Amino acid sequence: MSDTTPAAYDDLLDRVGRITNVSNAAGLLSWDQQVMMPDEGTPARSRQLSALSAVEHDLLVDDELGHLLDELEAADLTADERAVVREVRREQERAVRVPTDLVERVSAASSEALTAWREATDADDFETFAPHLRELIDLKRRYAEHIAPDRDPYAVLFEEYEPCLSLEHAESVLTTLREAVVPLVDDIRGADANLATDTFDGTFPSDQQESLMRDVLDDLGYRWERGRLDVAPHPFSTGTTYDARITTRYDEADPVGALLSTVHEFGHATYTLGLPDEAYGTPLGEARDLSIHESQSRLWENHVGRSRAFWERFLPRVVEAFPGVGDPSVREAYEAVNAVDPTNLIRVEADELTYHLHIVLRFEIERDLIRGDLDVAEVPAVWNDKMDSYLGVRPETDAKGCLQDIHWSHGNFGYFPTYSLGSVIAAQLFDAADRDLDGLDDAIRAGEFTSLHDWLTDRIHRHGKRFETNELVARATGDDVSADAFVDYATEKYGTLYGL
Amino acid sequence: MSDTTPAAYDDLLDRVGRITNVSNAAGLLSWDQQVMMPDEGTPARSRQLSALSAVEHDLLVDDELGHLLDELEAADLTADERAVVREVRREQERAVRVPTDLVERVSAASSEALTAWREATDADDFETFAPHLRELIDLKRRYAEHIAPDRDPYAVLFEEYEPCLSLEHAESVLTTLREAVVPLVDDIRGADANLATDTFDGTFPSDQQESLMRDVLDDLGYRWERGRLDVAPHPFSTGTTYDARITTRYDEADPVGALLSTVHEFGHATYTLGLPDEAYGTPLGEARDLSIHESQSRLWENHVGRSRAFWERFLPRVVEAFPGVGDPSVREAYEAVNAVDPTNLIRVEADELTYHLHIVLRFEIERDLIRGDLDVAEVPAVWNDKMDSYLGVRPETDAKGCLQDIHWSHGNFGYFPTYSLGSVIAAQLFDAADRDLDGLDDAIRAGEFTSLHDWLTDRIHRHGKRFETNELVARATGDDVSADAFVDYATEKYGTLYGL
Repeated sequence: MSDTTPAAYDDLLDRVGRITNVSNAAGLLSWDQQVMMPDEGTPARSRQLSALSAVEHDLLVDDELGHLLDELEAADLTADERAVVREVRREQERAVRVPTDLVERVSAASSEALTAWREATDADDFETFAPHLRELIDLKRRYAEHIAPDRDPYAVLFEEYEPCLSLEHAESVLTTLREAVVPLVDDIRGADANLATDTFDGTFPSDQQESLMRDVLDDLGYRWERGRLDVAPHPFSTGTTYDARITTRYDEADPVGALLSTVHEFGHATYTLGLPDEAYGTPLGEARDLSIHESQSRLWENHVGRSRAFWERFLPRVVEAFPGVGDPSVREAYEAVNAVDPTNLIRVEADELTYHLHIVLRFEIERDLIRGDLDVAEVPAVWNDKMDSYLGVRPETDAKGCLQDIHWSHGNFGYFPTYSLGSVIAAQLFDAADRDLDGLDDAIRAGEFTSLHDWLTDRIHRHGKRFETNELVARATGDDVSADAFVDYATEKYGTLYGL
Repeated sequence: MSDTTPAAYDDLLDRVGRITNVSNAAGLLSWDQQVMMPDEGTPARSRQLSALSAVEHDLLVDDELGHLLDELEAADLTADERAVVREVRREQERAVRVPTDLVERVSAASSEALTAWREATDADDFETFAPHLRELIDLKRRYAEHIAPDRDPYAVLFEEYEPCLSLEHAESVLTTLREAVVPLVDDIRGADANLATDTFDGTFPSDQQESLMRDVLDDLGYRWERGRLDVAPHPFSTGTTYDARITTRYDEADPVGALLSTVHEFGHATYTLGLPDEAYGTPLGEARDLSIHESQSRLWENHVGRSRAFWERFLPRVVEAFPGVGDPSVREAYEAVNAVDPTNLIRVEADELTYHLHIVLRFEIERDLIRGDLDVAEVPAVWNDKMDSYLGVRPETDAKGCLQDIHWSHGNFGYFPTYSLGSVIAAQLFDAADRDLDGLDDAIRAGEFTSLHDWLTDRIHRHGKRFETNELVARATGDDVSADAFVDYATEKYGTLYGL
């Protein structure tokens, strides 16, 4: 703080600290619910989470907080202080503008939609879900209208997940991606390469997978004194710079799934752990939203965990843990973890490349739904047509088509693009790190990850929310957020793999 | 709710629900801290817990809550509604009367006192702890003065832990206990019985102890779908009626320690699980304070877990789990878990009988400290004199004397008596259950605990805070809270064991 920092700034930090701590408490409750809670604990846990969410909301809409922000926006502050005020104002403004009863209606509607979505998916019956989807779209449009009545409602909703990169910018990235990936996948489909996709066929007991995961996390430099590894049905990472936990799951038929998923969650956790201790409880101690978070997980998953150098180091460990895999070559392992499967229909099972087409499709559909350019009834047909057009396959059921993801039943419209944005930023960051650090590939091969950790901490983690997304990326890499690095990387990688 | 229930009552329930849920969230954070949290998580966790505690306090002192209570105290309510209002008022009044800065000073002082206490205990140096104890006594006296300036400050502090049984009543129970137990221990010291205290000598791996605990908890009827068993350095139980968790610890030299401690915590958890689901979030869904809670843990630990019938059932399991114990008789097992050791200096290691003298001693000292009748400097000498007078032993060090317990360094004065109150109420309840239920002893021997569960749920658990402590006990047993049942039970039990 500067000498001239007004007293109001301390008041602001007190209030923000409380809000953040209540929110972090909710994060822990949610972790516990997914990892530790006994089966019948839900009714109490739901009410505890609602209470914390209501408390957080009340603290955020408190008039006094608004007055402090008014005063501080007119004050002479340091750049860091201005960043704190900017970030708190953004949160506060949204909270103030959306009426509580609308928030509650969204919450109630998504709770019902979730049940309907589960039934619809089990029965492969889109009609069961359609009215709920329609209601959620209607509610979220009204939600967006409260925040900014004159703006594109989808752009407003997108900001829930990526508040400081414009939708125009994001859309141009996604368009570039689509235009590059569709023909690349087409070329791959036409190639006569025969990749070793059966390298890791077999049965892999969960206990041994877990011990391999712990070994890999040791090597990557996970700080166990500030973390844990547990099992959850849907892997995630959560926590604070003092305590950032990873979850994973084990499929006994697929050791690579758990490995890459664990490395992915490690990337999230290591970002959280790289946030500065001393800024805990303020925006400077918090992660810069979803696309940057996803850039960290995907950098570790794709640029480290799917690299040939990584497999040179880790293949012997996998073979040692699972002698049943025989004696595959590094090339065979590398092919198995990087093979492209354009016939796959499911986003969460997609390879690194086709993944983006699954995202672009969802983005285009949800954008048009929210803008009113597409009716809910048309979703299955449009979904299938786009699958055909982008990937050359048509789902035979809606369960394997437009019903496969949970996001819309949560009322989350605008979330999907952040996955692809994360990937393209990961490619930019890895490129830049590779330029800055001598022999990054050799370091990965040697299991020496300190220089990469340090680089990421210096360029990304330690800043928290100091910079907005594009500025953060530009300072780290020299370039604006763009798909170019990913396209170059993918063209080279898959060109080599498939002999294109 | 009756037809005439005023709208203010719904408002009250909303507010109380939020307060309870925030408090339960803090309970989960605290469980996690002791069971799951990585080593370096403390700084964030402390701030999260402070934030929740501040939120809870702010909700409790909100003027609007006071107005609702004023209105409802004058309204025509059902008995249950009146009970709810009474309980909320008690909490609210304390919160309103004690200034926030005093609460924060107690919290800061006890945080420092805790560190000093650890040093003092390690170095066996009471002087290191004395100034902190003095400060905490001073602060807690002021605390009591804010609540009720004209009353005995110790009586006021006692109400933090046992708010609805008068100190006079409690004191007469403790006096009866002392007057009965001192001569009984004296008789035991003089008896020439030679109990089989070495029945469970040996080494007992933690893994096998844990699997035995799970087996025992199954048999006792622990509802795993609403619970968990984990390890913690200091065993405890916590949670809600939907999710009541047990912790324990394993000493590889002592399988009986973990067994009785687990059964004790099971007793706490089963009380929590017996609270009515439909009253969750209101005082009618919450446990009636510490002495009733302790009565449940001690009923299961002492009247079930230390009974001969229990060992008739469980000894074969113990022998199966640990063949190294050989082939002891039920009598030998029963003697081993019930032997009295008047030479033991440590409360938490005390047998069921001498335990109460450890409590009476602490009660008398803390009462006199708070009343200003005893100076901190005199504590070691008074402690040792009382040990000599009640138990016939003198600690050679303060570490094994007046420094052994953590309670005072937390600023908890008035807590100790609830342990003995719990024991005497347990004896009363078990007596009453034994009268009401045919063949309770046979049921325990057969591992049939349903009738006891049902009786306890009907008489105690389902009422939550509906009745005040003495009324609850009187309705369940026909008698006011009293040491008589315990004294009869102990006289008979130890008379038989020691041939008195």
